[in-house]
Amino acid sequence: MARYGKRDDLIVHELEPFNVETCSAALAEDAVTATDAFYVRGHGAVPEVDPREWHLRVHGLVERELTLSLSTLREAFRERTETATLQCAGNRRAGLIAIRDIPGEAPWGAGATGTATWTGVALADVLALAGPLPRAAHVGFEGADLCPEARPQQRFGGSVPLDKACRPEVLLAWAMNGEPLTPVHGAPLRVVVPGYIGARSVKWLDRIEVRSTPWQGYFQHVVYRLLPEDGSVGPGEGMPLGLVALNSDVLSPPDGSTVDAGPVELRGYAFAGGERHVARVDVSLDGGASWVQAELLDDHGRWAWRHWRVSVDLAPGEHEVVVRAWDSSAATQPEDEAALWNPKGYVNNARPRIRLHAV
Amino acid sequence: MARYGKRDDLIVHELEPFNVETCSAALAEDAVTATDAFYVRGHGAVPEVDPREWHLRVHGLVERELTLSLSTLREAFRERTETATLQCAGNRRAGLIAIRDIPGEAPWGAGATGTATWTGVALADVLALAGPLPRAAHVGFEGADLCPEARPQQRFGGSVPLDKACRPEVLLAWAMNGEPLTPVHGAPLRVVVPGYIGARSVKWLDRIEVRSTPWQGYFQHVVYRLLPEDGSVGPGEGMPLGLVALNSDVLSPPDGSTVDAGPVELRGYAFAGGERHVARVDVSLDGGASWVQAELLDDHGRWAWRHWRVSVDLAPGEHEVVVRAWDSSAATQPEDEAALWNPKGYVNNARPRIRLHAV
Repeated sequence: MARYGKRDDLIVHELEPFNVETCSAALAEDAVTATDAFYVRGHGAVPEVDPREWHLRVHGLVERELTLSLSTLREAFRERTETATLQCAGNRRAGLIAIRDIPGEAPWGAGATGTATWTGVALADVLALAGPLPRAAHVGFEGADLCPEARPQQRFGGSVPLDKACRPEVLLAWAMNGEPLTPVHGAPLRVVVPGYIGARSVKWLDRIEVRSTPWQGYFQHVVYRLLPEDGSVGPGEGMPLGLVALNSDVLSPPDGSTVDAGPVELRGYAFAGGERHVARVDVSLDGGASWVQAELLDDHGRWAWRHWRVSVDLAPGEHEVVVRAWDSSAATQPEDEAALWNPKGYVNNARPRIRLHAV
Repeated sequence: MARYGKRDDLIVHELEPFNVETCSAALAEDAVTATDAFYVRGHGAVPEVDPREWHLRVHGLVERELTLSLSTLREAFRERTETATLQCAGNRRAGLIAIRDIPGEAPWGAGATGTATWTGVALADVLALAGPLPRAAHVGFEGADLCPEARPQQRFGGSVPLDKACRPEVLLAWAMNGEPLTPVHGAPLRVVVPGYIGARSVKWLDRIEVRSTPWQGYFQHVVYRLLPEDGSVGPGEGMPLGLVALNSDVLSPPDGSTVDAGPVELRGYAFAGGERHVARVDVSLDGGASWVQAELLDDHGRWAWRHWRVSVDLAPGEHEVVVRAWDSSAATQPEDEAALWNPKGYVNNARPRIRLHAV
């Protein structure tokens, strides 16, 4: 599958709009995910943007409006690089669909996530030049991608609180893993909001609106909201998602695989989300009655997940592995996936379970 | 009980050091807890500090050391007021002790928490005057209270990351609920670190040390750490607590009480902790099979809990009420209290349950 430069081991949910997820084996290769393996979640066709014609408009509750070309952005502000994990709010929806169907939503597995090194400028520096007015409280982003599913049809967008927008980790990025951003990942410029659901890292960015209220567009005011189990989608219904949830997965060996009995190395990731970090990862072979602690591997900074590994001794037979990550507030993942079911299938962060057959 | 000006309906765990918790009825009175009902958690005798002799020393990794009198603090910096909830990491330990004993630790109920309006100056403003050096990464606080339980014996202390210390909500406070701080609450000056466990809001503060590493004293490096179920207390063992956990409680009617059948109003609190806010509170009368949403009451700002209320219809008979709060990352409280047991009995934030008898 050469489409958009992606490897052929990605799992395709949809070709138009293009939606593909990364397989566990590819996520296991490195804590920084290769660009050609990185998941893509889009709501519209990949727009064709001519970088020479492109401008970023900054307006709304600001002292002065800005219209910035790519070369001005690159020359007038300090370049910054940040390694950050992105995770779609619909990651692991398949686990919820297995409990009760969610019509119209793609059955994403656990690969709607990945970690990359992003290069660009701090949104904070651009906002400082524009000068937010006292009433400013949110910063909205709009991309060039027209999304047929939205009612009314509109371009993709969303906002984050001004307080977050002014933190140094929020980037306007033109490069991913040291290479220019590819069209499918938002070229020429995208937002990267570490610690937030992927939907806030708006691609093909061309408009920043400083506002007094959160984004009122479809992708924040109607969807990407957590409804109660018996709730219905509608403007302002449910709670807006924003901070991404604590999550983890087993990346190797693959679920359902056959391994040699004896010592087996398990590897996976854990991701704290928000402004938290991963404090501990536990693994259980007896359904949670007892736990061993995994070793946390390379630390790529406070916005990146942690890969982990642990060696367990497997007697011949069937085994179920359960994992729970803990964040720096001593919160851990929910036990019961069924209790997380919601009408749009967001935020499945239940403790992951895989089955292994040891011979 | 006139001791330290506290009301006589507080629950006394220890007289020396003085440790008292607030009863549910007092917490239900107002979202801002009265000072004479506010819980006290101390590890040493209340020190006698003469405010005329008292000075605050700021030293360590700073460009210039400071020695500030109370009058200089009040005159040289802008006064700020913040409503913030404090919660002890040992709150609700009694629920864990009921599962398995925790020798040597007081069986705190759900009243080791409260919300007050604090007045003082921003720690950030004082740090800006001192000028943290590039290697600075943590800000340590030490009180005047000598704590016999510590090994070696030492004054109470702890630290928070420099990043948090520079946020405007962290106060050096001399007033609580509009009155001068009382001796038992830390007069003449205490730290208030909203969103962190109560132990970081060091009372009787007289030394601030800007450091490259977290506090190495007993109350951060040995205790106030979450151990695995089979872990043992020791220097650096377990994960340091810091950000306080999402929690909630039913404040009225009291657990075990008899009420009139028919519509019954339930009231309680929910507290998100960290930099999060309460997004939703659900109440179930059928053990979690179905939930109704409670109404969130007055918003006292992002560092205060939310009181909530909901009317439920109770048929004559026995009822169990279960509550779960959700924070702005769509995280909710753990179901299973037993799974939270840990050797020091910290961070019990399981969904609260009360029993009511309707006649």
